[in-house]
Amino acid sequence: MAEATTIDHDRHRRTGSAEVIYAEFKTPEQVIKAFKSIQDSGQNVLATRVKQDAFDLLSSEIEGVEFFESARIACWKGGDHQPDTPATSIGIVTAGTSDLPVAEEAAVTAEFYGNKTERIFDVGVAGVHRLLRRVDRIRTCRIVVVVAGMEGALPSVVGGLVDKPVIAVPTSVGYGAAFNGIAALLGMLTSCASGVSVVNIDNGFGAGFLANIINRL
Amino acid sequence: MAEATTIDHDRHRRTGSAEVIYAEFKTPEQVIKAFKSIQDSGQNVLATRVKQDAFDLLSSEIEGVEFFESARIACWKGGDHQPDTPATSIGIVTAGTSDLPVAEEAAVTAEFYGNKTERIFDVGVAGVHRLLRRVDRIRTCRIVVVVAGMEGALPSVVGGLVDKPVIAVPTSVGYGAAFNGIAALLGMLTSCASGVSVVNIDNGFGAGFLANIINRL
Amino acid sequence: MAEATTIDHDRHRRTGSAEVIYAEFKTPEQVIKAFKSIQDSGQNVLATRVKQDAFDLLSSEIEGVEFFESARIACWKGGDHQPDTPATSIGIVTAGTSDLPVAEEAAVTAEFYGNKTERIFDVGVAGVHRLLRRVDRIRTCRIVVVVAGMEGALPSVVGGLVDKPVIAVPTSVGYGAAFNGIAALLGMLTSCASGVSVVNIDNGFGAGFLANIINRL
Amino acid sequence: MAEATTIDHDRHRRTGSAEVIYAEFKTPEQVIKAFKSIQDSGQNVLATRVKQDAFDLLSSEIEGVEFFESARIACWKGGDHQPDTPATSIGIVTAGTSDLPVAEEAAVTAEFYGNKTERIFDVGVAGVHRLLRRVDRIRTCRIVVVVAGMEGALPSVVGGLVDKPVIAVPTSVGYGAAFNGIAALLGMLTSCASGVSVVNIDNGFGAGFLANIINRL
Amino acid sequence: MAEATTIDHDRHRRTGSAEVIYAEFKTPEQVIKAFKSIQDSGQNVLATRVKQDAFDLLSSEIEGVEFFESARIACWKGGDHQPDTPATSIGIVTAGTSDLPVAEEAAVTAEFYGNKTERIFDVGVAGVHRLLRRVDRIRTCRIVVVVAGMEGALPSVVGGLVDKPVIAVPTSVGYGAAFNGIAALLGMLTSCASGVSVVNIDNGFGAGFLANIINRL
Amino acid sequence: MAEATTIDHDRHRRTGSAEVIYAEFKTPEQVIKAFKSIQDSGQNVLATRVKQDAFDLLSSEIEGVEFFESARIACWKGGDHQPDTPATSIGIVTAGTSDLPVAEEAAVTAEFYGNKTERIFDVGVAGVHRLLRRVDRIRTCRIVVVVAGMEGALPSVVGGLVDKPVIAVPTSVGYGAAFNGIAALLGMLTSCASGVSVVNIDNGFGAGFLANIINRL
Amino acid sequence: MAEATTIDHDRHRRTGSAEVIYAEFKTPEQVIKAFKSIQDSGQNVLATRVKQDAFDLLSSEIEGVEFFESARIACWKGGDHQPDTPATSIGIVTAGTSDLPVAEEAAVTAEFYGNKTERIFDVGVAGVHRLLRRVDRIRTCRIVVVVAGMEGALPSVVGGLVDKPVIAVPTSVGYGAAFNGIAALLGMLTSCASGVSVVNIDNGFGAGFLANIINRL
Amino acid sequence: MAEATTIDHDRHRRTGSAEVIYAEFKTPEQVIKAFKSIQDSGQNVLATRVKQDAFDLLSSEIEGVEFFESARIACWKGGDHQPDTPATSIGIVTAGTSDLPVAEEAAVTAEFYGNKTERIFDVGVAGVHRLLRRVDRIRTCRIVVVVAGMEGALPSVVGGLVDKPVIAVPTSVGYGAAFNGIAALLGMLTSCASGVSVVNIDNGFGAGFLANIINRL
Repeated sequence: MAEATTIDHDRHRRTGSAEVIYAEFKTPEQVIKAFKSIQDSGQNVLATRVKQDAFDLLSSEIEGVEFFESARIACWKGGDHQPDTPATSIGIVTAGTSDLPVAEEAAVTAEFYGNKTERIFDVGVAGVHRLLRRVDRIRTCRIVVVVAGMEGALPSVVGGLVDKPVIAVPTSVGYGAAFNGIAALLGMLTSCASGVSVVNIDNGFGAGFLANIINRL
Repeated sequence: MAEATTIDHDRHRRTGSAEVIYAEFKTPEQVIKAFKSIQDSGQNVLATRVKQDAFDLLSSEIEGVEFFESARIACWKGGDHQPDTPATSIGIVTAGTSDLPVAEEAAVTAEFYGNKTERIFDVGVAGVHRLLRRVDRIRTCRIVVVVAGMEGALPSVVGGLVDKPVIAVPTSVGYGAAFNGIAALLGMLTSCASGVSVVNIDNGFGAGFLANIINRL
Repeated sequence: MAEATTIDHDRHRRTGSAEVIYAEFKTPEQVIKAFKSIQDSGQNVLATRVKQDAFDLLSSEIEGVEFFESARIACWKGGDHQPDTPATSIGIVTAGTSDLPVAEEAAVTAEFYGNKTERIFDVGVAGVHRLLRRVDRIRTCRIVVVVAGMEGALPSVVGGLVDKPVIAVPTSVGYGAAFNGIAALLGMLTSCASGVSVVNIDNGFGAGFLANIINRL
Repeated sequence: MAEATTIDHDRHRRTGSAEVIYAEFKTPEQVIKAFKSIQDSGQNVLATRVKQDAFDLLSSEIEGVEFFESARIACWKGGDHQPDTPATSIGIVTAGTSDLPVAEEAAVTAEFYGNKTERIFDVGVAGVHRLLRRVDRIRTCRIVVVVAGMEGALPSVVGGLVDKPVIAVPTSVGYGAAFNGIAALLGMLTSCASGVSVVNIDNGFGAGFLANIINRL
Repeated sequence: MAEATTIDHDRHRRTGSAEVIYAEFKTPEQVIKAFKSIQDSGQNVLATRVKQDAFDLLSSEIEGVEFFESARIACWKGGDHQPDTPATSIGIVTAGTSDLPVAEEAAVTAEFYGNKTERIFDVGVAGVHRLLRRVDRIRTCRIVVVVAGMEGALPSVVGGLVDKPVIAVPTSVGYGAAFNGIAALLGMLTSCASGVSVVNIDNGFGAGFLANIINRL
Repeated sequence: MAEATTIDHDRHRRTGSAEVIYAEFKTPEQVIKAFKSIQDSGQNVLATRVKQDAFDLLSSEIEGVEFFESARIACWKGGDHQPDTPATSIGIVTAGTSDLPVAEEAAVTAEFYGNKTERIFDVGVAGVHRLLRRVDRIRTCRIVVVVAGMEGALPSVVGGLVDKPVIAVPTSVGYGAAFNGIAALLGMLTSCASGVSVVNIDNGFGAGFLANIINRL
Repeated sequence: MAEATTIDHDRHRRTGSAEVIYAEFKTPEQVIKAFKSIQDSGQNVLATRVKQDAFDLLSSEIEGVEFFESARIACWKGGDHQPDTPATSIGIVTAGTSDLPVAEEAAVTAEFYGNKTERIFDVGVAGVHRLLRRVDRIRTCRIVVVVAGMEGALPSVVGGLVDKPVIAVPTSVGYGAAFNGIAALLGMLTSCASGVSVVNIDNGFGAGFLANIINRL
Repeated sequence: MAEATTIDHDRHRRTGSAEVIYAEFKTPEQVIKAFKSIQDSGQNVLATRVKQDAFDLLSSEIEGVEFFESARIACWKGGDHQPDTPATSIGIVTAGTSDLPVAEEAAVTAEFYGNKTERIFDVGVAGVHRLLRRVDRIRTCRIVVVVAGMEGALPSVVGGLVDKPVIAVPTSVGYGAAFNGIAALLGMLTSCASGVSVVNIDNGFGAGFLANIINRL
């Protein structure tokens, strides 16, 4: 079964990015094996949902690996080719403190691919003035990632304030009728603001990755 | 089976209001029979979800019946005792044009019970400045009923702007992931604003009735 | 990331109450940091869903912090301004013993904001005479919070007995088709009694907070 | 395909009752064919969910067929053997007027099989005194069928007042979060009263049939 | 809060049975307190969903308490009045080995109330001949409790073979699309056999209790 | 937009069967155009979910088209190559009369592809003896398609009686908790019998098509 | 109530596009009134989900209105300012013929805002070679809108073939377990391809609008 | 209760295979008892979902028991009769590494019953070229089992490339809107490819068992 995980080294040529390691259900040994395989092909390496034990192993065996704790991301940027940095920034907006890990996953992912980011955190809709005070800063970004749990209303408000693409990320933050992110997901899909699209619950990586693609158009 | 519908004439003494006729699944004949029964007991009469044919029959047989078309309410205010009018108003706020019938059901219900209302319509969160321009007017009200479909985000924003009780009414307006009001319902139940409570989908009557009770405290 | 949690100190002026700390997903360190920040602004502090370890840290570092174990609430009432006490009480009614933590969360919250409360516990609808014996006491309250799990029928019965606003709180108590509070939530939303509105599953704080707002109208 | 519907004439011997015709999705021609087939075997015939056009055809072709309009039942009692009548009655209790068709389906079914019934209608839990006034009459019955839509709370209250088996029938009456009977179904399944069991949404026939079996034990 | 749990000692007179302790969410201390309270009133005591630690405490403090491990029931039968034993038996039929705890909860409950039981276990529908070999034994019972998880088909087959009331108990046994008992619950509610009613998922107690009521009619 | 529907004429070579026309959402004009396009390529044509108006147009314009009314299938077998007929039969088993259209869709599809079929209809599990009397006939088949609505228990019973692949087809027949086929679908997916696999609700075509593939192995 | 619909004429300045008329639940009179209001402000007008009767009224009263029947869009491009045309195209890819109306809604919307589009229709994943033959053409686009019903797998396959943003639109096409677009929606949200985001079920307008925003970055 | 598990030793004669032990919810003692019972009847033994502790006990007490760790299967092949080996192979195709345990359960099951298998792993649809490179190898198989989590799109693509029966196995791999396998399950049930049928989520055993039955036709 040694060949069960076939790293898709051709992916970089085909879609412009190296394969990414989703570490959630992998053992530390599986993570490090996949990590080295991509590293050996000369590419930068990004691993998401990395737990402390996997990072400990990574940092003891691989020089130069970085760990972003709240983002749960481990990465290595010693590849043969480094991405250039677009002139424009990616905005990362969050509703509450609890959404921070998902927002950081999006931000660190975008930065891994060479982008500048603007973090505008804790501007939930129940205190809309906090958001309005930051609108000018949000408007300087080329794309806006909006991360929110509970009722997930923030993308609707942001989408009505800017003329940029909004990538909405529902989070599983909440309880009761939040149903682990379903309330936020439905709220974002039915947003009355145009220009909003949605990724999976808690999928900070997907939002950061897509923001990078759009920022490079 | 003549006695199948037993009008609860004692209800007024016990809970302060006459029984209300929910006409949705009743024939015009059943509606008029219930209408007359309450009328004969000397109380004002309120019927909700009244269709055109039922109203036509009502207006041909009962003098002084009023019909509020967009609210789908028929009522008669010739009872022995009329409610006094509280000094404070009830605000009725809606997100979009399609939410109007439910908002009107709430407003006309509140007025039937003797209240003054303030209608602040079409101030959805995707254009938050429209809402902010009306905040002062909303703040003059003692209770605010907020009616919204789609993602149902409006109560969260309003709840963060006022220090009054907010009664949120999800509507079945929307399509796809709106799931006939479920998205709005979940959004309102998980609202990050405090001071918000929720009634059933499309239940404008319930919101107007509760607002009246609170306004009379 | 130090600025990730921006305490909304302006909230008191705008909505009449200080921001509240929802401690469920926070580390003890995060809880104490937020706690001190509000305290430093001269306001009373309320933290809900506080676990034992967070409270232990709070009590070792902050003088005068109180802990309500079954309500899972920690609070500090040494702020510059103390709320006055309204003349009228808030009723807290529960169906069963297991609903007690949520009921206590509602009661302690209402008391934190200066209200008197009446606890009427363990009066589920399967023994309706227990409830009827307490109706007079319930009727002395200005607002009634009704907490129930399983089929959540209690608000319907209470709502038919009083002419006061009823705030229904579904709890996640139950098993099987109770679906962690969904059965109770749906039962309360579709209540045949008027004057009933609903908050999120297990949201005792929300009910107590809203009851305070209404009690002060 | 003539043999597609094989009437199970042996069923009477095996389970004590003739097969029943569920007419909902059948053409009038299919209904009458099935009706005659059972009639020819010498048994009484019961058809449920019969629409007007099917009954018109039945009454024009078969002598002695009876139609219960609100119950939507057509039956013929000219079979070779008639059921005897148990000494005890079956109670049929409903919450509201709209639940009447399902309640009548239960009552007429029970009567078809030879039982006496007690109809106690329109005693919903939002006016619990109406129910309490009828408790003595309910307690004279050997089994109680309780029919309710919306939040479906009535079986819990009845189950706490009697020591007889309660067969709960949720109905699809309601709107919004009633979800066509799901709210009532969940409420009944999670009833805090013991001695309650549940049949399918709107299944008046099933309740009446089961009540007959129990009444004959 | 000492009075939070008000044992309903009047219940025995009103509904014919003592209150039952549902121990699932109670501490051993709460269980023993409730246990003693009922015992002191002179009645037999039944506690369900009792965990090992609660039983250990019970057995160390109360003489004569019995523990049925697979049924998770603790009981004490030293009350002032003992139930008589009906002449007829209650059948308890299960589909598979994993359904045994729920089946035993039903059986031990029925026996606690004085009934004789017939256990017919492990006769799932995928081996229908095993069931057919036991039909004669099942037919000797006055009521049949059928316990099944997965697709929950057994009550349909049993219901077609006997002319007695069938109480169907869905269990949470299964995985994937069994959805913790939902598949079995829906299967039983939509059973094509008449004479079947359903209790909550895993509610062996409810089935045994109801069977006792019916057996005593 | 003339090229919107690109008939996949290469499909026959690649997967062994011509493309099939799913007529449900197509106008009669669209159906006949697709029909002729496949016909012109020299292949037999199969159209499912054909309504009367579409068939009327087909039969007026194309010679030799056959219509199977209860199966809602129109087909033309004048293609250049006709399938041979396997020596073994495909069994089509149904629970009730209402499942007949889906069963016929499966049977006619299997016959279109050259197979012999055995129809064993109306053998639902509530009368298991009817099924047992047909077991020998079912065992002569090489594959068994089992069609059932309501609780969908039939595939479990059949799967325990034969050692052949069972293709289970849930139907949308039923009401209430049948949820348009969800109860049957879940029941079949969680079947305790091995050798059972499931296709989409009401997908008689899919079952007949798959049975043909298996019969030709 | 004349002011119920407040056209947000300021929106163009704030977000770069005029307000759009969602005609689904509006009467022809309401549509034409909104249409003229935007027209009078000097902007181009776009109305989606326009039915035949509304278009007939529009075309009889307003000169130069265009109707795109399969897209269900009516528009007028005589405004004071016309959008320029970006050099790059937007790809619109569909799985099957039935998805065409939603795909056309996306395409016509994108064209209304001045974009060139590439339609690549009927390339569902069950015939992946049809898709592979068009990959080069898809790669010439700057953004790709992928429209699919049923299992909604197409965006995953397309997302793995291109390095451009993919906007996935689930459609309500399908039956049974497609659940009116839920299967496709979930499939797209959980897509294993990166760079994919999702809009509401059947929301062709939202996809076209967002594609325009991205194409203009 | 000793007789609670009645091993169905007759099953081999009736359906061609010995009963299988589903060990998930069994204690090691229950597993070994069932294991020995089948062994004593002279048949090969297969136990699925075996945990390490159960295997440790098995291997210490029974000679010749084999353990397949990633498949979580323990088996013993020393029975009186060994299956012969069909000439044709069963293909096992997986989308991603995380699906491996379910795929191995299917493969080891198929091998236990005497079949040759072809493992084609890690060929998810987001890199469709990896799949296309293996199509010739897949086409050599007589039946193809396709295992996939997340959006579950792989069976649709494979089903369009081969003319063999495809058994689709959804896995619970994924997060958020994957809903523990529901997204994959719905995607497979609504697959636009013909010749696909589906088993329960994570049911690798069921797929391998069914593949064996088909391979022996």
